Amino acid sequence: MTDIKIPLRDMRFAMRELLDWDKHYESLGYEEATPDLVDAILEEGAKFCENVLAPLNQVGDQQGCTWKDGEVTTPEGFKEAYQQFVEAGWPSLAHDPAHGGQGLPPSLGTVMSEMVGTANWSWGMYPGLSHGAMNTLEAHGTDEQKDTYLTKLVEGSWTGTMCLTEPHCGTDLGILRTKAEPNDDGSYAITGTKIFISAGEHDMAENIVHIVLARLPDAPAGTKGISLFIVPKFLPNADGSLGERNGVVCGSLEHKMGIHGNATAVLNFDGAKGFLIGPPNKGLNCMFTFMNTARLGTALQGLAHAEAGFQKSLAYAKDRLQMRSLSGPKNPDGPADPIIVHPDVRRMLLTQKAFAEGGRMLILLCAQQVDRLQKGSDEDKKEADELLAFLTPIAKAFLTETGLESANLGLQCFGGHGYIAEWGMEQNVRDARISTIYEGTTGVQALDLLGRKVLMSQGELLRRFTKVVHKFCQAEIDNEALAPFVTKLQELNKQWGDLTLHVGGKAMENPDEVGAASVDYLMFSGYAVQAYLWARAAKIANDKLAEGTGEADFYRAKLATARFYFDRILPRTASHATAMLSGAANLMDLDAEHFAF
Amino acid sequence: MTDIKIPLRDMRFAMRELLDWDKHYESLGYEEATPDLVDAILEEGAKFCENVLAPLNQVGDQQGCTWKDGEVTTPEGFKEAYQQFVEAGWPSLAHDPAHGGQGLPPSLGTVMSEMVGTANWSWGMYPGLSHGAMNTLEAHGTDEQKDTYLTKLVEGSWTGTMCLTEPHCGTDLGILRTKAEPNDDGSYAITGTKIFISAGEHDMAENIVHIVLARLPDAPAGTKGISLFIVPKFLPNADGSLGERNGVVCGSLEHKMGIHGNATAVLNFDGAKGFLIGPPNKGLNCMFTFMNTARLGTALQGLAHAEAGFQKSLAYAKDRLQMRSLSGPKNPDGPADPIIVHPDVRRMLLTQKAFAEGGRMLILLCAQQVDRLQKGSDEDKKEADELLAFLTPIAKAFLTETGLESANLGLQCFGGHGYIAEWGMEQNVRDARISTIYEGTTGVQALDLLGRKVLMSQGELLRRFTKVVHKFCQAEIDNEALAPFVTKLQELNKQWGDLTLHVGGKAMENPDEVGAASVDYLMFSGYAVQAYLWARAAKIANDKLAEGTGEADFYRAKLATARFYFDRILPRTASHATAMLSGAANLMDLDAEHFAF
Repeated sequence: MTDIKIPLRDMRFAMRELLDWDKHYESLGYEEATPDLVDAILEEGAKFCENVLAPLNQVGDQQGCTWKDGEVTTPEGFKEAYQQFVEAGWPSLAHDPAHGGQGLPPSLGTVMSEMVGTANWSWGMYPGLSHGAMNTLEAHGTDEQKDTYLTKLVEGSWTGTMCLTEPHCGTDLGILRTKAEPNDDGSYAITGTKIFISAGEHDMAENIVHIVLARLPDAPAGTKGISLFIVPKFLPNADGSLGERNGVVCGSLEHKMGIHGNATAVLNFDGAKGFLIGPPNKGLNCMFTFMNTARLGTALQGLAHAEAGFQKSLAYAKDRLQMRSLSGPKNPDGPADPIIVHPDVRRMLLTQKAFAEGGRMLILLCAQQVDRLQKGSDEDKKEADELLAFLTPIAKAFLTETGLESANLGLQCFGGHGYIAEWGMEQNVRDARISTIYEGTTGVQALDLLGRKVLMSQGELLRRFTKVVHKFCQAEIDNEALAPFVTKLQELNKQWGDLTLHVGGKAMENPDEVGAASVDYLMFSGYAVQAYLWARAAKIANDKLAEGTGEADFYRAKLATARFYFDRILPRTASHATAMLSGAANLMDLDAEHFAF
Repeated sequence: MTDIKIPLRDMRFAMRELLDWDKHYESLGYEEATPDLVDAILEEGAKFCENVLAPLNQVGDQQGCTWKDGEVTTPEGFKEAYQQFVEAGWPSLAHDPAHGGQGLPPSLGTVMSEMVGTANWSWGMYPGLSHGAMNTLEAHGTDEQKDTYLTKLVEGSWTGTMCLTEPHCGTDLGILRTKAEPNDDGSYAITGTKIFISAGEHDMAENIVHIVLARLPDAPAGTKGISLFIVPKFLPNADGSLGERNGVVCGSLEHKMGIHGNATAVLNFDGAKGFLIGPPNKGLNCMFTFMNTARLGTALQGLAHAEAGFQKSLAYAKDRLQMRSLSGPKNPDGPADPIIVHPDVRRMLLTQKAFAEGGRMLILLCAQQVDRLQKGSDEDKKEADELLAFLTPIAKAFLTETGLESANLGLQCFGGHGYIAEWGMEQNVRDARISTIYEGTTGVQALDLLGRKVLMSQGELLRRFTKVVHKFCQAEIDNEALAPFVTKLQELNKQWGDLTLHVGGKAMENPDEVGAASVDYLMFSGYAVQAYLWARAAKIANDKLAEGTGEADFYRAKLATARFYFDRILPRTASHATAMLSGAANLMDLDAEHFAF
């Protein structure tokens, strides 16, 4: 299997040349996030991911996690790698200094998560889930809860989980049944079954802090009756040492298509001691405060599998000799040409490349808004919050859909060998497959985008974005070198608004029109956002080439990829537009009982 | 896991109402293929597939095949099911009565293969591969070879394989290295390694007849130096009993993403005794005589996984309660509505349904041509041959691509549960994933279609088809009920020709233009062929409804699916058209060394 190389050059392109993070950090007052420190983090992070995590990726898939009597053993080497990760201080990177964090920008945490995920997604989910628990505690915990739990999570000696799903409800949390009954000591007895709990049980850390959604005895029905509880695997003593084993037991592990290295647990809570976090019955609101961050974390998975698949299939395409180029032998001394000479293999490689690099630009644009939310002025915060609200469902659904497509194209480049486990390409597809489902399916993200974000804001969140795009187009309208990009982008930007008006109008008559248009609308939006980012990338590349650069090949490749994206990927918007304009009747008219005979 | 139900009503729609097979069989002189017999085959075949094969599908995935000292054990129950299959006479259905066959039309064999494949694709590959060996022997074997091998294959007591691929060559058979050296007795000593040999070793039959591609000592280089050999696992004695073990040994089984129930063998030939079949150095030509049939067999896999995924996700969507319909509760007494009320779930179900039913129409149209090739007049044969040449790469690539998409949508309908093994949806995706690769990848099919079939015939093969489409449109132009279909189909038909002219023109300047357009061209063609078939289906349904029928719900569903296809799937042609018109430069300009930095 080919090694993973963290694409530092391209990451720096997005971080510095596209998004100007050096200045961004300075202006927000992240004094420690100097260019030198950022470089050191990139270099050290890449080294750890390439040398420690990537070699464990296939091992994790092959060995998986094993369950015995409620205890879970992770694959060989996972535990040791986590120990190194903790010793190097990575868990604390972007967390609150008041509880042992390094206080660096959240966006640098995202950068590190991208590197970790590209090397070994399953492994990365263990520290990844901890971030969810940490964010909950930072936002809603009492000082005592923070002292007891957050400090341990930040140093990485404990890990965390988020316990939402139950056998009968995933998307529909309003119908969850786990109960929380008050104990005399102010704690609660938590009883119920949670499933699909990622990193829910393992041997990598001494304790696990579960954040659990449950209902108080007097809770109203539906989503307004859900509360949040901290349920530690071991109850901590007053001095912080580990006390009694709590009544939460891993009943089994799921047998999954992929991400075998991560333990997906069924957790049985049998009167487990829990502590209310945040106000009663406001659990779902508390969760929403960092829903965007969590979804961004999953959007990363699309990028991670696109990048990993791209790297491996590129290496294979340069190496594998098969057939001659239609335009004459390119490797006349060999028995055949490397398959990268074939136009369709290039199409598959460039599609992956465009989605990986484009995905990176989008993720980091989102991550930048998280920094602004944390440290910006009030106006900054409002702007960042709205932009993030708009971009997050797009990033989550579009990047995981295109990540899955990319992973499949990577496999396809290998021909029959792609189907064989040893090459790692089929694992990449299996691992990627979950990403369009968890943390809100593509369908759920699409309803969130079109229904909640766009239509409920009367189109305002969209207009803010299309105004930015319009401004870019106006500024570059006379730039001849960019004309192929700018002309198309302008048309698209206008079409985006028109489609929204059209669908919005129909939705007022029939709410099912929203659901009927939503996934096509989301995909259209994803291609449009990517077009804007690729046009900006093309401008940077073009400027650099015009002013002279020692990296002409890099910038020419950037331009070539932008051109590929506009020529061969962006046309997909036409199909999505036509489909969404066709209305709901072609979906809704058929009686459920007449789908099959 | 939900049971599989063979969709007999829809199969009869395609066989009888769309393609008029009762008359077709009669006119070709298949006297035994009476409507009653056909019905009996459908009923008995469905029973066997539903009751015997479907229950072994998940077992096959979980247990897989095991290798020990060169011997392979198939999953529990596979062997017994094969015994039943043989006893019922299924292997002989469509083969030559001169060697024990029943002489029924090949198209009925395809119908049975669809049923088998939908129930259990991995199991079906064992008898499926035998057909390849039987076809080779029927077309190119000597009488003696037929007596010795064909009779055993037809009765099913032996199975067959096709040994093409070697570690360094799959698509590029011209560079294969397996050697065949003449022995004194007229046989040959075969030496080399073959990989990816489906059903290459197993315990289901007493002998295996390998058809092996190899080179004679004096063979010219490339594809013109390949000969075909029969290499039995056990050498038969003169009386037909099994003699000496031959020098072909299964070195190992591949670890694959899916189709675990089928043994994908590495076969080591170490001076194994082989018998030349067909003329020396003409092996590839001999293979080409039934390449279309073999590819049709793989096209079936797309249909099989689309159908299986559709059935299971439909059942789940009617059962699973989650969220309320946006247009108000549809199941007010329950805690939530069944997810089939949600427009996007319907979109996913209808996409699978359209691809399954549309795929069935295309496969059976192709299968009909195979009958005409076998028994038709000379003119019939020529017409059928040309239509099959044109449709086969479309059927193979388009149906497997859309089959994989369908399998993924089926999984997606299940949300997180789709990712868990017990539901069978992730197996359906893993099993489907190979279909776009083996028997010629999508890229290879696309080059075959655009380069060899369309452009090399100066567009003639396409024109024959578009003429048929045009004729249909002309006949229905005043049929108001069909107007939405016919208008669109006419435009599309014209666009298909225009695109071909355009790409053909560019290809004369630069052959890489063929490869750059080919996959988009193939997918465009697939959607166009399906549009024609759906329009015909709509006409039939519309006529039936107009004349009055006891099955109004069935025909209304057919119309609804046609409408869904035209509204929401067919618009994809626009993206493919734009992409293929963009030319080769956006793929070819980037230097191979500059794809990554």
